[in-house]
Amino acid sequence: MTTTPLLDRVVYPSDLRTLAKSDLRQLCDELRSEVIDAVSCTGGHLGSGLGVVELTAAIHYVYDTPRDRLIFDVGHQCYPHKVLTGRRERIRTLRQKDGLSGFTKRSESPYDPFGAAHAATSISAALGMAVARDLKGEQDRNSPDDAATGGGAKNDDRRVIAVIGDGSMSAGMAYEAMNNAGDTGGQLTVILNDNEMSIAPPVGAMSAYLARAASSGSYQGFRNLAKQLTKRLPPRLRDMAGKAEEYGRAMVTGGGTLFEELGFYYVGPIDGHNLDHLLPVLENVKNITDRPVLVHVVTQKGKGYQLTVDKGDKLHAVSKFDVISGEEVKKTSNAPSYTGVFAGQLIEEAKKNERIVGITAAMPSGTGIDKFMKEFPDRTFDVGIAEQHAVTFAAGLAAEGMVPFCALYSTFLQRAYDSVVHDVALQNLPVRFAMDRAGLVGNDGATHAGAYDTAYLGCLPNMVLMACGDEAELQAMTRTAAEFDEHPIGFRFPRGEGMGVDMYAPEDVPLLEIGKGRIVAEGTKVCLLNFGGRLGECMKAADLLEARGLSTTVADARFAKPLDEDLIRRLAKEHEVLISVEEGSIGGFGSFVLEFLNRDGLLDAGALKVRTMHLPDIYQDQASPKEMYEEARLQAEHITEQALMAFGQAAAAAGDRA
Amino acid sequence: MTTTPLLDRVVYPSDLRTLAKSDLRQLCDELRSEVIDAVSCTGGHLGSGLGVVELTAAIHYVYDTPRDRLIFDVGHQCYPHKVLTGRRERIRTLRQKDGLSGFTKRSESPYDPFGAAHAATSISAALGMAVARDLKGEQDRNSPDDAATGGGAKNDDRRVIAVIGDGSMSAGMAYEAMNNAGDTGGQLTVILNDNEMSIAPPVGAMSAYLARAASSGSYQGFRNLAKQLTKRLPPRLRDMAGKAEEYGRAMVTGGGTLFEELGFYYVGPIDGHNLDHLLPVLENVKNITDRPVLVHVVTQKGKGYQLTVDKGDKLHAVSKFDVISGEEVKKTSNAPSYTGVFAGQLIEEAKKNERIVGITAAMPSGTGIDKFMKEFPDRTFDVGIAEQHAVTFAAGLAAEGMVPFCALYSTFLQRAYDSVVHDVALQNLPVRFAMDRAGLVGNDGATHAGAYDTAYLGCLPNMVLMACGDEAELQAMTRTAAEFDEHPIGFRFPRGEGMGVDMYAPEDVPLLEIGKGRIVAEGTKVCLLNFGGRLGECMKAADLLEARGLSTTVADARFAKPLDEDLIRRLAKEHEVLISVEEGSIGGFGSFVLEFLNRDGLLDAGALKVRTMHLPDIYQDQASPKEMYEEARLQAEHITEQALMAFGQAAAAAGDRA
Repeated sequence: MTTTPLLDRVVYPSDLRTLAKSDLRQLCDELRSEVIDAVSCTGGHLGSGLGVVELTAAIHYVYDTPRDRLIFDVGHQCYPHKVLTGRRERIRTLRQKDGLSGFTKRSESPYDPFGAAHAATSISAALGMAVARDLKGEQDRNSPDDAATGGGAKNDDRRVIAVIGDGSMSAGMAYEAMNNAGDTGGQLTVILNDNEMSIAPPVGAMSAYLARAASSGSYQGFRNLAKQLTKRLPPRLRDMAGKAEEYGRAMVTGGGTLFEELGFYYVGPIDGHNLDHLLPVLENVKNITDRPVLVHVVTQKGKGYQLTVDKGDKLHAVSKFDVISGEEVKKTSNAPSYTGVFAGQLIEEAKKNERIVGITAAMPSGTGIDKFMKEFPDRTFDVGIAEQHAVTFAAGLAAEGMVPFCALYSTFLQRAYDSVVHDVALQNLPVRFAMDRAGLVGNDGATHAGAYDTAYLGCLPNMVLMACGDEAELQAMTRTAAEFDEHPIGFRFPRGEGMGVDMYAPEDVPLLEIGKGRIVAEGTKVCLLNFGGRLGECMKAADLLEARGLSTTVADARFAKPLDEDLIRRLAKEHEVLISVEEGSIGGFGSFVLEFLNRDGLLDAGALKVRTMHLPDIYQDQASPKEMYEEARLQAEHITEQALMAFGQAAAAAGDRA
Repeated sequence: MTTTPLLDRVVYPSDLRTLAKSDLRQLCDELRSEVIDAVSCTGGHLGSGLGVVELTAAIHYVYDTPRDRLIFDVGHQCYPHKVLTGRRERIRTLRQKDGLSGFTKRSESPYDPFGAAHAATSISAALGMAVARDLKGEQDRNSPDDAATGGGAKNDDRRVIAVIGDGSMSAGMAYEAMNNAGDTGGQLTVILNDNEMSIAPPVGAMSAYLARAASSGSYQGFRNLAKQLTKRLPPRLRDMAGKAEEYGRAMVTGGGTLFEELGFYYVGPIDGHNLDHLLPVLENVKNITDRPVLVHVVTQKGKGYQLTVDKGDKLHAVSKFDVISGEEVKKTSNAPSYTGVFAGQLIEEAKKNERIVGITAAMPSGTGIDKFMKEFPDRTFDVGIAEQHAVTFAAGLAAEGMVPFCALYSTFLQRAYDSVVHDVALQNLPVRFAMDRAGLVGNDGATHAGAYDTAYLGCLPNMVLMACGDEAELQAMTRTAAEFDEHPIGFRFPRGEGMGVDMYAPEDVPLLEIGKGRIVAEGTKVCLLNFGGRLGECMKAADLLEARGLSTTVADARFAKPLDEDLIRRLAKEHEVLISVEEGSIGGFGSFVLEFLNRDGLLDAGALKVRTMHLPDIYQDQASPKEMYEEARLQAEHITEQALMAFGQAAAAAGDRA
């Protein structure tokens, strides 16, 4: 490892600020090598952080963090920030159990004033904080106590800075916040980190717009301009609204009209790796308090680690890797990934039906839509980080007889909830939702848990909801969704590799009957009723229970909606204990089973004990999926334990009655 | 009533197209008087429709609807459209049971190709339809069958038009769709109906931008320009991308740069009441197929009915009224509205705590925030139709120690779901959600039902969820939410007037204990466990049951989360039948009660029958709230019937066991 003499002196930003400006270049080089080394040990999001090393250092150098609020959007880029804000010692625990989160997180540090992980939340949060500052400043000034002590300045010079990528700018929420901020006034700085690459290359008109703006600016020219401006600006710019306007305008060397129209000063584009450009600009905009400022910074994702730059989005998120060769240490698996199985089957279906189209919201490789895109480029739509639009766009396609598949992570579908309710389900349009990363997702942690979809979709009339117990089932569900057009239909599948079961040959993939489950193993005493990815654990639990002398049925419900009432009724009548198992929250499959059993009077006689096993009512921090399911108590041993306990209670209750 | 000789000849747009252009002015006058008269009989959204009479007639005159797809955003403005599209005979059933919907609705007419009610969905849907057209056209061209018959033109000259108000333009979803559309190409026309007034005056930088654009245009000048252009344009513009570009640019007489930057041709601003301006422009843009076009039309909400114009947003939605005097026929009620009670109490709390702020998403009067705004203008934030931003903005405020109240309709909170999950609940920030219009909402129908919030919020860790049984309870819940800061907290309340119970004096409003319900009436056999607005019906049902000799408890849970487990355990042990009642979907309160009872083993012995009563698994069309609750089977007689049935089954089961 290289030595890091300057970085060794920096534990907090206050240490950073003791360095000379001329030392920052070396500090950044050291910081960059520290981040590369740390991520080589832990895996994680590499390229984003490397792109903002200089920007991060410059912000902490110029602003008074944590008193000034620095909010990173998404948070993939926050590793250098963590190194500079007291967390260097723990940086090699990134994304591990009990380690640092891979995102900013309020509970982790006062330097993380607002957590993130989903895109485009930063400007809204920043505006909230800026307004809080201005209101509290006002309140302080009006307080008699405060007036006695001079008052006025307690809160109101706190700066708020949001750092947001160009990819996030395609999300409507960013626009909603800009629209509101541009109308509000007060200090607020939005730094647009334009790396022309969020996760995949960004799409949409905004992206083209930024490229035009960036290309029209001259870095060379800007450097001189910045120097000139710095010389001309008076030491303090506060309350100089009029002049700030003038300077703000003068600094527009590129495009920026669009942001100006939304009420922002636009400054840029600036070379985000050149500290001689960054520092004076940040020092200037820091003191603009009459209107929000957008600083357009151009950076290179993966900067300083050629392997990352070369591999493009391949090194957006990496496994542990060798720093010299860039080779990732990948676990080998015999089973294909669920994502790959979905994509493969969707391609098969699309060969048969030219009406099938694939939609992704800026996650082509994460959702497997990149593979679909290679086969059917004209039938693939990457709409940007814009889940609401993705779903209603799909509804428009479905209304015209197309067969749209929205491939989204379960956690991101949350952002399109009203579109699902209002545009899809209510109109009963057959949009297909492929919900990847359902359940617990491991290193991404709580922010990405696909925990709620069964609850939030299962309550909607017209919806059909499936979850696959293994990867062969996912083939069948993808086919079923392609051919079923009476209702909207969603199917959820876990992150990671399948169970290694035999796969169907393309011509043999079965069409599932809607609302029908299956019996996987027949027994007599206990029934484990699975919905989704815990099927393997249910089967292991059944073995454990059989070993304890308890004859156990394993049923795979396949559908949470409509429920297979015939099957569940039969299972309820033929067993003493029925346990539902799912990797989702309360209010989902288990709740629907209970509702049905009660409605049908199947619990009235007291002959059946029902227990539901679902995710616990907590946000679970990152760990390996297995560790997370241990914590959630959804592994085979927990299912076994639950069954034994219920059976014991059942036996005791039967004894009481006898 | 005035005579309508021309309108009498128009049943469908095809009839309209037989009229001479010179007749359209009179036709519009007749159409306007028809709409005024119809709404005076039914109540409904008056001003929006009156503002687009000319625009609606012009679109149907120029475009080949329903083959060309016309999509209205929100749909408040669609009454003239309904009159012109075969629904005049039923126009006086608007918003009534079994009548016409107050919005566009696919199942109602082929002239409504995409339903609406929530804002800003139209561009996404239109883009989906345009892409479907282009894909199918491509497929037709590639089909051998089709090639034989010449092929090519089957689908691909279908036009798609979206009409969206300036208010909806503050919603991020509109931006997401524009961003995607501007990058996509193909014919798509977005007509921006700029009436400077969505429901309330619009807010935000976009609104200011549009005002600048509108004021910079010269209607006089434009008329001449339009004439000139019409002369110069060749009869067909297809495949003239280059020239269209030139003309498109030439037509920019106002602002529009922002839309141009997003990849649209911008045309306007145009006087939306002047058919001599509208018709030639629509005829021109109809043939632009290389890029989407935005036509900026300026209209006056309520145009042609002076009383509507004068009253501003007061006549956005009206009761039945007298056409001459404008006086509305209002039902008198002795009970205050829930909205008013919430607003009044929030003002009381805000007097005590200067950290309280009120947030509305473009619905100040609907949510009562207008009253709050009068008292505390600096602490009120109307963020535009931007629910996602509203909630994350509130999270930012809460992170800085403010006490934000997000006042939203339950149905619109759906749009902020991910913000609730990711920014509020996960970070455990004490944002307060006042969820108005929970349950069934009457004339607005299925699109506005506040049916799902208990399910979609109740599954989230950290959330606290209340619902009020009457208006005095709402006082208490508002106070409780103001003072509780350990978790995010939501409280739901129905549309309309309270039950007429005694209200608390401001100084006597109690603080509720979190997670504790109350017993309203003590009994021994049956327990009705209420959550929310059905409390009155539960009390009536209890009387009916008592009359049948069944001693009945009425309990009001107050909290769906955390559940009052002690209370429910006691009730379960002390009764033979327990019935949960709520005006929400499955997966909500009743499901949580069942989950608890099963987890706690309280159903194991078979001594208790539980039934859950919630909204049915259908989308309920508009009617009066009472009619809707009849259909939902949530009135006193249904609760009584359910209790008797369960009790009978319980008695029979006990007999079987004995």
